[in-house]
Amino acid sequence: LNAAFLVSNPDTAVSEHSVDTALIALAERLADASGPVARHYFRTPLAIDDKSDDSPVTRADREAEAAIRRIIEAERPTDGILGEEHGAVRTDAEYVWVLDPIDGTRAFINGLPVFGTLIALTRHGAPILGVIDMPALGDRWTGACGHPTRFASAGNGAGQAHVRACATLAAARLCATTPDMFNRDDRPRFTRMTQAVRDTRYGTDCIAYGLLASGHTDLVVEAGMQPYDYLAQVPIIEGAGGTITDWQGKPLTLESKGDVVAAGDARVHREALAVLAAG
Amino acid sequence: LNAAFLVSNPDTAVSEHSVDTALIALAERLADASGPVARHYFRTPLAIDDKSDDSPVTRADREAEAAIRRIIEAERPTDGILGEEHGAVRTDAEYVWVLDPIDGTRAFINGLPVFGTLIALTRHGAPILGVIDMPALGDRWTGACGHPTRFASAGNGAGQAHVRACATLAAARLCATTPDMFNRDDRPRFTRMTQAVRDTRYGTDCIAYGLLASGHTDLVVEAGMQPYDYLAQVPIIEGAGGTITDWQGKPLTLESKGDVVAAGDARVHREALAVLAAG
Repeated sequence: LNAAFLVSNPDTAVSEHSVDTALIALAERLADASGPVARHYFRTPLAIDDKSDDSPVTRADREAEAAIRRIIEAERPTDGILGEEHGAVRTDAEYVWVLDPIDGTRAFINGLPVFGTLIALTRHGAPILGVIDMPALGDRWTGACGHPTRFASAGNGAGQAHVRACATLAAARLCATTPDMFNRDDRPRFTRMTQAVRDTRYGTDCIAYGLLASGHTDLVVEAGMQPYDYLAQVPIIEGAGGTITDWQGKPLTLESKGDVVAAGDARVHREALAVLAAG
Repeated sequence: LNAAFLVSNPDTAVSEHSVDTALIALAERLADASGPVARHYFRTPLAIDDKSDDSPVTRADREAEAAIRRIIEAERPTDGILGEEHGAVRTDAEYVWVLDPIDGTRAFINGLPVFGTLIALTRHGAPILGVIDMPALGDRWTGACGHPTRFASAGNGAGQAHVRACATLAAARLCATTPDMFNRDDRPRFTRMTQAVRDTRYGTDCIAYGLLASGHTDLVVEAGMQPYDYLAQVPIIEGAGGTITDWQGKPLTLESKGDVVAAGDARVHREALAVLAAG
């Protein structure tokens, strides 16, 4: 059951319902459509634009998102869409799709195959369905409210994803994309976190959340993220038995500030929140 | 032509000879032998040992190196071997194999498929042959003195690898495994480097050097490395048209301190050395 969904819909019976399997299948088809676009452009010479926020963006990014949006517009024309590349439409709709066609653009641009596609569906602002798809690796995690999280690996079949136990923060392995994602206020908190855990792996982007859902790592702490960077992860982590919130322990929604802490074991999550809360 | 080899053998005619293709084929067979071991253990639950240097090490690491050493012992019993896991034998031999069965152990342990196997052959201490093999990705770079560097990708054929041009350090993309690899003296130099380049990608381990050889990125700056962490890269980078030295611009050998700067474009390499040299 998706905690964020319950919090933002405390009085609706529908909150206890599972996400319709047709919606899950649609989300997977969206990833099926964007993956070939990403693979087509991966490791080819590209003219790289810099957007105003200085993040690198490629034709792959724009065309992959366009491929996803075409399907949503055709099949669910009243749903809203919020995408990193092509902006927002109908975001006051009950259902809003939140898209990051290439999460880890810097990985993509440097030829590292650990970039991913993030597809989230929110209802009343809370994430109820998410896909982390790794087009160059063939890995895919799919999570939905009321369903166990599913991991599929090209050539290696599919099955349920489960987090692993980890009793203490000191025993936990931490992942984060880069120390540069933390601002002046957040950086000392993150430094304390790296000192409190067993070890830290950088350069992980969205795959870290999938690996956490599958029990390969214990903790992800990030900051300064946009809704399309974190919403897909929520149903995936929760459906695998983990916990994912902002740094105050609150559910992640479309309105969150963009600070994320995800843990496989609730004990590690509690300890991590305490480290982040200290002044 | 391998500069490091020339420097350490200034008066021998053999320095101008190409590496025998039988040696190159043997190096590739060593990677063929270690890859399945790494893949077998990847993303499986493991008891993780911590060595005295606190780096995580797995059964995969030890068994992959053992698989490589068995072949060397059988086919070239007088060659020396220096491996991360099983130590050194006959390191005073003319030819010494230098092995890191799983470079990027932290990637491996967290389930990230960007770990690699590094196989180098030195002659009189200078690297003349190197393989970067990525068992979970199917990517492999092979470089040898007197031969163009070769890149092979499972399912996508093979061809020569070439660096790309990059006129200035300010335009260069930088890769490094982690900012934590730099000690108190090196850290400010590396920080200046991140401020001088276009952008920085962490978490790259050995694949960064292959991607540089293939023209997907421009610069790798690292420190505190062991010979098995950097020697394989030398023939690969040089055979692709790039430059790789220590932070003083000297050739990398078995005796180097372990500070590495690799660039696809010699102009970027010169600028990077200047940034690293400033007090």
